[in-house]
Amino acid sequence: MNIFKLCEYPEKIIELLNDNFQGLDYELNFDGLDCKLSIYNASEDDIDGVVNLFSNVIYSDEDESLAKCAINLLYENNINVAVAESCTGGMLASMFIDVPGSSEVFYEGLVTYSNASKIDRLSVAIDTISDFGAVSRETSLEMAQGLLQDGVIIGISTTGIAGPQGGSEEKPVGTVYITVADIDAFTTKKYIFSGSRNEIRKYAAQKAIFQLVEFLIKNYKV
Amino acid sequence: MNIFKLCEYPEKIIELLNDNFQGLDYELNFDGLDCKLSIYNASEDDIDGVVNLFSNVIYSDEDESLAKCAINLLYENNINVAVAESCTGGMLASMFIDVPGSSEVFYEGLVTYSNASKIDRLSVAIDTISDFGAVSRETSLEMAQGLLQDGVIIGISTTGIAGPQGGSEEKPVGTVYITVADIDAFTTKKYIFSGSRNEIRKYAAQKAIFQLVEFLIKNYKV
Repeated sequence: MNIFKLCEYPEKIIELLNDNFQGLDYELNFDGLDCKLSIYNASEDDIDGVVNLFSNVIYSDEDESLAKCAINLLYENNINVAVAESCTGGMLASMFIDVPGSSEVFYEGLVTYSNASKIDRLSVAIDTISDFGAVSRETSLEMAQGLLQDGVIIGISTTGIAGPQGGSEEKPVGTVYITVADIDAFTTKKYIFSGSRNEIRKYAAQKAIFQLVEFLIKNYKV
Repeated sequence: MNIFKLCEYPEKIIELLNDNFQGLDYELNFDGLDCKLSIYNASEDDIDGVVNLFSNVIYSDEDESLAKCAINLLYENNINVAVAESCTGGMLASMFIDVPGSSEVFYEGLVTYSNASKIDRLSVAIDTISDFGAVSRETSLEMAQGLLQDGVIIGISTTGIAGPQGGSEEKPVGTVYITVADIDAFTTKKYIFSGSRNEIRKYAAQKAIFQLVEFLIKNYKV
């Protein structure tokens, strides 16, 4: 049996599997935001095909949660993180802290929901918010970089529009910017999620951890 | 029909109802951490009895969530809040922010999971942590009071031992201190919750909001 953990909605996984593999013997378990794909009696070609198909969303070939995977990578590399959350508002910190032992690598979280808090706590420039908006690539980047002090190695930020109000044509409800940054590098991505306010927040928190895992594998992996 | 929203575990409610009322026609709905008790065709005496029995845990006689009830009270009184979380680690902020419109009253959240973060962000005294421990009435109070700056009217803090490790005879796993404070007053309460790490964190976040509602009703209610 081969196991893969994926950071993706189960419906999309099922659709892709059924479209691309005929007769594949698999089982999909979905617990909260974690998808576990178990494949039985498959040929090496089929396994390679699955890995290729889902290469952008597979985060582990062991049975571990996304947050646990991230915590392990941080721990192995002796890296600590801090998070600055706007739309996810505590969910991201909570997903880390739900893992026992996370205190070894989780330094702190800032839920900077108001603009004043973004400016005071994270040194986001007033001009950045007025020029680009609180929900923007630029604000997201400054939020994450504003965390990099006092020995914090990696900063993660989320800012977006969870709805139901607050959307516009240019930035509809579900638009979220996520940045992962250290002193040398950063990745900022824009997502557009659909769902309820709470779902949009959950998806954003999950993608933030996945973006961290990608960043760690690219820049740090032991 | 009479509706009451209660901040308590459903098993306890069912047990108390069955022990104290014979033939009461009721229905209990449990959604996440919110308990909704609907009572049908009851006499005034029975309703009074229910209110007396649950006076410590009823937070509303309307069908609204605990977080929504708290947000409404804050909004009506033109009060903003900030939260400082240790063991709940983002869950408390998240429960507030899950309510649309919460940005009007939620200023910011600090997930001060490390002692360094408690000292740097909240001005908790090093001596307080070394004398009484990070999980103590004293640290909880200083955490909440440390939030009262920049126009924050009410500060809420949580600090506790969510487990599975870290408990002691004096402070077992599940011990949580919660403080609600403004510039003039505060309430600090000690709780001992049982359950998984995640359950203990959820119960603590819920009780923190309930403690806020009590504080608002006592000190502010419009």
